[in-house]
Amino acid sequence: MKPVAKKECLKRMNYLKGHLSGVKKMIENDAYCIDIIKQNRAVINALHKVNELILGSHFDTCVIGAAFGKSRKKQKDMMRELMGIYKTSNNI
Amino acid sequence: MKPVAKKECLKRMNYLKGHLSGVKKMIENDAYCIDIIKQNRAVINALHKVNELILGSHFDTCVIGAAFGKSRKKQKDMMRELMGIYKTSNNI
Amino acid sequence: MKPVAKKECLKRMNYLKGHLSGVKKMIENDAYCIDIIKQNRAVINALHKVNELILGSHFDTCVIGAAFGKSRKKQKDMMRELMGIYKTSNNI
Amino acid sequence: MKPVAKKECLKRMNYLKGHLSGVKKMIENDAYCIDIIKQNRAVINALHKVNELILGSHFDTCVIGAAFGKSRKKQKDMMRELMGIYKTSNNI
Repeated sequence: MKPVAKKECLKRMNYLKGHLSGVKKMIENDAYCIDIIKQNRAVINALHKVNELILGSHFDTCVIGAAFGKSRKKQKDMMRELMGIYKTSNNI
Repeated sequence: MKPVAKKECLKRMNYLKGHLSGVKKMIENDAYCIDIIKQNRAVINALHKVNELILGSHFDTCVIGAAFGKSRKKQKDMMRELMGIYKTSNNI
Repeated sequence: MKPVAKKECLKRMNYLKGHLSGVKKMIENDAYCIDIIKQNRAVINALHKVNELILGSHFDTCVIGAAFGKSRKKQKDMMRELMGIYKTSNNI
Repeated sequence: MKPVAKKECLKRMNYLKGHLSGVKKMIENDAYCIDIIKQNRAVINALHKVNELILGSHFDTCVIGAAFGKSRKKQKDMMRELMGIYKTSNNI
């Protein structure tokens, strides 16, 4: 991953660990169900955002690298991998 | 939340805290982007599952409770709240 | 469904039939892949919106009706059904 | 799009037009709300599947083509476009 993206992702993951602990405490303290669900969703959305950052960096480095490389196999593998990510997102 | 659901959710949240720390470590150690994305997705799916458990318990307790109650206002509020959860899921 | 919701849904479904035919024509005319994908997504989002309208009407009529009814079985069935919709949305 | 993918997509789009008309008829005939929602979801899932086919073909032709091309600008544009598709899927 590019250093800038790595730093940003680690910052977010640190924050998310705290967020998740907060949700756990809400469950322990019998917070209102809907409020817990909303906080869990906030964590989910933040994780999607981290994945977006990682994928953006992946495009800028690994994918571009493979595209410029001379190995047709490497290019095909890279494409297959990206396609896999789309397929499993179940949301193209 | 019902005690059984609460216990199950807490168990899962504990596990997820460890999982999230593991993903953070993957980022620190420059693991392959696609592998990190896949692990983050596993956490996301597990959080959706926790939300499903919480909502199931919410239906069994609060929603049924309001439905049997005599307050029409409380029933309407409950319905509006549930509808809100659907709308924000953006995936009905 | 409530008459207002029904009318609105039918209007949207009519429009969507036209939209879908348009996307089909794009495919026939070898439009650019990404443009086709975007149009299909517009149809998908519009269908989610129709489902939201239907579910909103369902809450206002059937769900409220069952909640006020005296049949505990009917209430439980209704809740189970709603929970099923959430679960299959895979996106709570 | 590759001929095989194009043919398959057109077949599916044709079927989906009929499916959509069927859902419209359900609404006209006051079918049960939850049943309508489920049919609309089937259409939505089928449209995601069509998009998956189109994207797969896009990878095999346009993206591979740009990757092998000598234009660094074209490669970057292609990557930016793909990244855009991921970001708007809101589900990486």
